[in-house]
Amino acid sequence: MYKAPVEEIAFTLKHVAGMGDAISEGLLGDLGEDLVDAILAEAGRFATEEVAPLAEIGDRQGARLIDGEVRLPDGWRDLYRHWIAGGWNGLTAPEAFGGQALPHMLNVAALEMWNSGSMAFGLAPTLTMGAIEAVGAHGSAALKDKYLEKMVSGEWTGTMNLTEPHAGSDLGVLKARAERRDDGSYRLFGQKIFITWGEHDAADNIIHLVLARLPDAPAGTRGISLFLVPKFLVNDDGSLGPRNDLFCHSLEHKLGIHGSPTCTMIYGDGKFGGEKGAVGWLVGEENKGLACMFTMMNNARLAVGMQGVAIAEAATQKALAYARERTQGRAPGSSSAGMSPIVEHPDVARMLLTMKALTQGARAISYACAHAIDMSHRAGDISRQWQERAALLTPIAKSFSTDSGVDVASLGIQVHGGMGFIEETGAARYLRDARIAPIYEGTNGIQAIDLVTRKLPLSGGGQVKGFIAELREIANGVRRSNLDGFGETAARLDAAIVDLELATAWLIKTLADDKAAEALSGATPYQRLFGLVLTGCYLAKGGLVESADGAAENRIALCRFAAENLLAETAALRDRVVNGAASLAAARILLA
Amino acid sequence: MYKAPVEEIAFTLKHVAGMGDAISEGLLGDLGEDLVDAILAEAGRFATEEVAPLAEIGDRQGARLIDGEVRLPDGWRDLYRHWIAGGWNGLTAPEAFGGQALPHMLNVAALEMWNSGSMAFGLAPTLTMGAIEAVGAHGSAALKDKYLEKMVSGEWTGTMNLTEPHAGSDLGVLKARAERRDDGSYRLFGQKIFITWGEHDAADNIIHLVLARLPDAPAGTRGISLFLVPKFLVNDDGSLGPRNDLFCHSLEHKLGIHGSPTCTMIYGDGKFGGEKGAVGWLVGEENKGLACMFTMMNNARLAVGMQGVAIAEAATQKALAYARERTQGRAPGSSSAGMSPIVEHPDVARMLLTMKALTQGARAISYACAHAIDMSHRAGDISRQWQERAALLTPIAKSFSTDSGVDVASLGIQVHGGMGFIEETGAARYLRDARIAPIYEGTNGIQAIDLVTRKLPLSGGGQVKGFIAELREIANGVRRSNLDGFGETAARLDAAIVDLELATAWLIKTLADDKAAEALSGATPYQRLFGLVLTGCYLAKGGLVESADGAAENRIALCRFAAENLLAETAALRDRVVNGAASLAAARILLA
Repeated sequence: MYKAPVEEIAFTLKHVAGMGDAISEGLLGDLGEDLVDAILAEAGRFATEEVAPLAEIGDRQGARLIDGEVRLPDGWRDLYRHWIAGGWNGLTAPEAFGGQALPHMLNVAALEMWNSGSMAFGLAPTLTMGAIEAVGAHGSAALKDKYLEKMVSGEWTGTMNLTEPHAGSDLGVLKARAERRDDGSYRLFGQKIFITWGEHDAADNIIHLVLARLPDAPAGTRGISLFLVPKFLVNDDGSLGPRNDLFCHSLEHKLGIHGSPTCTMIYGDGKFGGEKGAVGWLVGEENKGLACMFTMMNNARLAVGMQGVAIAEAATQKALAYARERTQGRAPGSSSAGMSPIVEHPDVARMLLTMKALTQGARAISYACAHAIDMSHRAGDISRQWQERAALLTPIAKSFSTDSGVDVASLGIQVHGGMGFIEETGAARYLRDARIAPIYEGTNGIQAIDLVTRKLPLSGGGQVKGFIAELREIANGVRRSNLDGFGETAARLDAAIVDLELATAWLIKTLADDKAAEALSGATPYQRLFGLVLTGCYLAKGGLVESADGAAENRIALCRFAAENLLAETAALRDRVVNGAASLAAARILLA
Repeated sequence: MYKAPVEEIAFTLKHVAGMGDAISEGLLGDLGEDLVDAILAEAGRFATEEVAPLAEIGDRQGARLIDGEVRLPDGWRDLYRHWIAGGWNGLTAPEAFGGQALPHMLNVAALEMWNSGSMAFGLAPTLTMGAIEAVGAHGSAALKDKYLEKMVSGEWTGTMNLTEPHAGSDLGVLKARAERRDDGSYRLFGQKIFITWGEHDAADNIIHLVLARLPDAPAGTRGISLFLVPKFLVNDDGSLGPRNDLFCHSLEHKLGIHGSPTCTMIYGDGKFGGEKGAVGWLVGEENKGLACMFTMMNNARLAVGMQGVAIAEAATQKALAYARERTQGRAPGSSSAGMSPIVEHPDVARMLLTMKALTQGARAISYACAHAIDMSHRAGDISRQWQERAALLTPIAKSFSTDSGVDVASLGIQVHGGMGFIEETGAARYLRDARIAPIYEGTNGIQAIDLVTRKLPLSGGGQVKGFIAELREIANGVRRSNLDGFGETAARLDAAIVDLELATAWLIKTLADDKAAEALSGATPYQRLFGLVLTGCYLAKGGLVESADGAAENRIALCRFAAENLLAETAALRDRVVNGAASLAAARILLA
């Protein structure tokens, strides 16, 4: 059973991701390390004792559509109520609406724990937080006053309605339509698919944010507007009015995250009588809906990245526990008679250490991204640089973490042998749940395009260049430390950073030469290359922190394993970026 | 929907795996290319038109245990009957018992197609063929006369009962026991788990091969005997007698292959009354059971490898069809207005080409392994060398193909985007089914140990050395061909072969120095390295075959893509083998 790794999380936040510096520079207000520890401990307790025990029934039973209502798995309604009673939903929300205005760093750490407990459950707050952010940034004062307080408390949940059957990665072609009404409201019509937590029985109201097109809107992405469309209309005194003209038509039958209702939503079908059209209100300006969505994109993508970290952590814990218990065969060099715990077999140890290194690397990258987001709001004069850093890190955090979630969960099954394939063991669920994360909130291929075409050019390439210089300083720190435990780490990091530098320079030049197809051919290998280099560097940064309890020794050993066993891949990835496009283009005849 | 790639299969058999040479040297008897084509075409038709359409209901409904009887999914009983009526079960079985004595190469090609149609269905013949082989090689004349004909026809199916809860990879500790009876028979007692097709309603009888221990047997693997234990006792006239004292206690609830009943079998519990103990007969000698199992190990492992190839092929077909239809966004350089088919986006093309290259590489390796098995029985004076080649290739074919099955199925989901996560799409089933193949019939970690510790030392290292020399000849052939389409293939193959050579030499030396733990730390990377080198070389071998229809151009392009985009990984893998052990050993403190 999952046990929240509170100490590792706290260490990574403070000493690797930058929270310690931010606190000592006074950028996080009253927040001190003790309060951080207390919040993490309580979140860890809740995730471990309350969320995780309900994951299996959530998976087995799933969300069910009964007579038009969605029923959550047994126990989940109470679980959600307890969770909002703990105040967890409003951790980073504005104090004006009842939130605690704490840094995002704390929230992503908590999100990791909820999602490790149950990724299907963790999705509910993820969506609500996104909706709060969009309304908070772009909603009118009237909308904020009417909706935000109950969304912040979690009494009402939120959704994002983007996808339609023909419009997934490309939202420019969506067809849902909105009509203006004289009272300033709108009426919405259309079908939306893949709406996470679009309908359920744990909240009194559900606030849908819906992308739709006005009758006179320009074609493409410049003609999309964002609307707030509540399940129940809200009276001026805040009480609930009549049911709005929208409903959940069906639930998807998915590979994983069964407890999370994935809804097809129908707007404006007149199901409940009266005038047709779901009543909605504009968020932001007409035809600027996509820009409103982009506001919250960094946070939402990072939140999905946390799901990857979360699954990787939980799968690693489970596999390690099994490998320590299960005995088979005799490990080479084993001194005891009889069978060895399989953890002693080198190949099993390799799998487990790979799992640990990828998990910790993904965690550090994601927390560092959250730190950059926090700093972009709090660092005064240099906020803009932090905003760029957050923008640069977001696609890497999302893709590297979610790919690692899948890879680690798959290795976890392998460590379990035949038992891994049996559903009751629970290892397979992690793979089933993890598999969606590289797809939603922008596929990892879309992240790679974003990284290469929008993030590398930031500050004329200066942002990425400066970041690489910081990474080199970490490698130098390892060299200066003269610690034997690091083995060849410094040299390995140097080589990996050179690979990153060469690939970056090639991409920037190739884009400047207007060779988009060539650059994009290497986007995914480049994204992975960046993630691996960051993994090595952040593990090293952690290893360089002194500590009295032997924890430093462990961190140095994991860093060395990553440097000497995982980082060798960077040369191949650099090669794919720089030399891979021609053969890819030539082989397209096979796909015609 | 899956369509058997009969032409690609025939080409690979004849021109890459060696069947063409074997035919022209007269080593395959009367078998000519026309007959090969006819058999493949008919197998392809059956797999495409009869097996594949029942895969989805098999997955959804699964095998069910009802009142102690296992019911197959709707339609599967008839499907199985049709399949044996086609004579497919006895393709390679001895003519004396009604088989067709055709080469294994043909059978693995057919197995690929059955498994592409439905891996859960393909398991039934896989197990029966293994049982036929064991009884054929080690059974007494009386056992063969009584059982083989109906097993060859498929009227009776076969199983392998090895695993017990505490004895999986390590069979030395199994506890099932057998007692001698005066009439030469035995009585068996115990529990076996994970018994594939252990009970079902499609055959009149089920012939279980069971590993058990005699009362006076030595401890460990030298005290294990193999027994034939039929579900129904068989009278001397071949008719069925009373029910034997064995039954299916429960079915596993698995991640995939739902149509395949995975049974817990109980022997000797007295469920049907009478004297307790399941009646069985010895196969081979007492305490030599494991040796009997090893006889069929190469074929069984290769058969599981075919499942990897099969899933990879089916998943690739499905993803490619989707990517050609689905439009989103505008691909760089697209000349048409509006959205492009996603296959035109470079990142999607990279995924699909990777899928194609891994599939074709795994297929070629597996067929080459089957060819070596055939030659080990048919090549006269040099049969022994072919036996070694088969032994060397088997762990690579099993592991590379099954790892590729998982990787390709996972990429296939990614190509589908959100639709890939919806079960009705069918892409997710491939991943669920594929995930068991790297585990059963010896985990891929066990295959790597086998490769490094038992196969590399064959002929004092001469076998692997000779094989690498052959691979170098392929690279030289590419260079001599002077075909522009190959791009940098020759140089890439050279470099990859050097990596393989260095890693091989290091492993042989390290084992000779008695440093087993160090050598085994690199076993899995080495196995993957070998598989990638073979992929590159076999794709090149196919590309060097001239053809008038443009197919050669396609093959050369795929080879170049693999050489210039996938083979760069070999350097990292070699590095992990040669330099990875120290940091792995140091990091074990994290697992304690």
